[in-house]
Amino acid sequence: MRADGHRRRQAILREAVTLSTVDGLEGLSIGNLAKALAMSKSGLYAHFGSKEELQLATVDEAARIFRQEVIEPALRAPAGVGQLVAVCDAFVEHLRRRTFPGGCFFAGAVLEMGSRSGPVKEAVAAFQQGLVQQIGEFAGAAIAGGELPVTEDPGQLAFEIMGVILATNAGFVLGGDDGVLDVAGQVVRRRLGVATDGPGRA
Amino acid sequence: MRADGHRRRQAILREAVTLSTVDGLEGLSIGNLAKALAMSKSGLYAHFGSKEELQLATVDEAARIFRQEVIEPALRAPAGVGQLVAVCDAFVEHLRRRTFPGGCFFAGAVLEMGSRSGPVKEAVAAFQQGLVQQIGEFAGAAIAGGELPVTEDPGQLAFEIMGVILATNAGFVLGGDDGVLDVAGQVVRRRLGVATDGPGRA
Repeated sequence: MRADGHRRRQAILREAVTLSTVDGLEGLSIGNLAKALAMSKSGLYAHFGSKEELQLATVDEAARIFRQEVIEPALRAPAGVGQLVAVCDAFVEHLRRRTFPGGCFFAGAVLEMGSRSGPVKEAVAAFQQGLVQQIGEFAGAAIAGGELPVTEDPGQLAFEIMGVILATNAGFVLGGDDGVLDVAGQVVRRRLGVATDGPGRA
Repeated sequence: MRADGHRRRQAILREAVTLSTVDGLEGLSIGNLAKALAMSKSGLYAHFGSKEELQLATVDEAARIFRQEVIEPALRAPAGVGQLVAVCDAFVEHLRRRTFPGGCFFAGAVLEMGSRSGPVKEAVAAFQQGLVQQIGEFAGAAIAGGELPVTEDPGQLAFEIMGVILATNAGFVLGGDDGVLDVAGQVVRRRLGVATDGPGRA
């Protein structure tokens, strides 16, 4: 029974993440979500007592999916440049398989929540800062391991990689085709001095 | 009288752009805008007959402001690398002076409208594509003029510069402080082989 309840909650939250990538976290409401799931509003209130609680649970679920689809594949790659390339490739695949209709949940949530305050904004900011820090650690390992010159700055490199991720997402969301995904793979490999042996694929 | 009407319309649209950077283009309504301007809804209907007409006029005004604040300063810089650095610096200054509370209008609009269809999405996409093409032309001139190696690809470089712009905007909107603006200036100069003689300023 508890496992069923957990699966049901997770299915609800996945729909909430999906809707948020189109209508925004502020556009998410228990009413809209109930409609999308063909559930009663009272049924949803049993899971989430308020809009803010629903938003926070949605950010948590989006973070779980992002970690599973993007961070974990990178952590399994060889430390250093291998992880930098892998995090970008995994992000590209996250888009390519159209996990969500509006592209990357966090790219949108950062801009939507950035000018607000409160716990939902804090949760989005914490995720984003954690991601930048993780990429910075991959970059630091690449420099420490001699794969990248010591003149590189891990923080600046993480910033550049975030830029590639955001430009890829923006181009993909706007264009709706896979062309930009291949460009992303080439740009990252060129930047890191890795041979491009395929059109943006590892 | 016509000049007065034009100024009045422009002031209304500037407020519409401002509101859109916080609540999104879909969050913009004649009702909300009337409230923000302390105008009657019927007064606004005299300017814009429908929400879509208001959204399209808002995108046009945002494009005009972006061209004035970001593109035109770049066009006045020396062709090639000078223009690439200038477009980034001008974008950074556009954020630094807090032109809009939610950062860059188009960074948000691209993600919000990307998964929709219709004339507003088309207008946002046309602006974004024009910007990428303009930056690609700056890059092409830098390569043709021998400032960058012929192994550089103008399209890929434009993609990277868009990435820096988007990462700067995301970091600035989320963090609310100027630190990321200085990083942007350093990253672009390092990428283009230009000496950094100040903290991200030209």
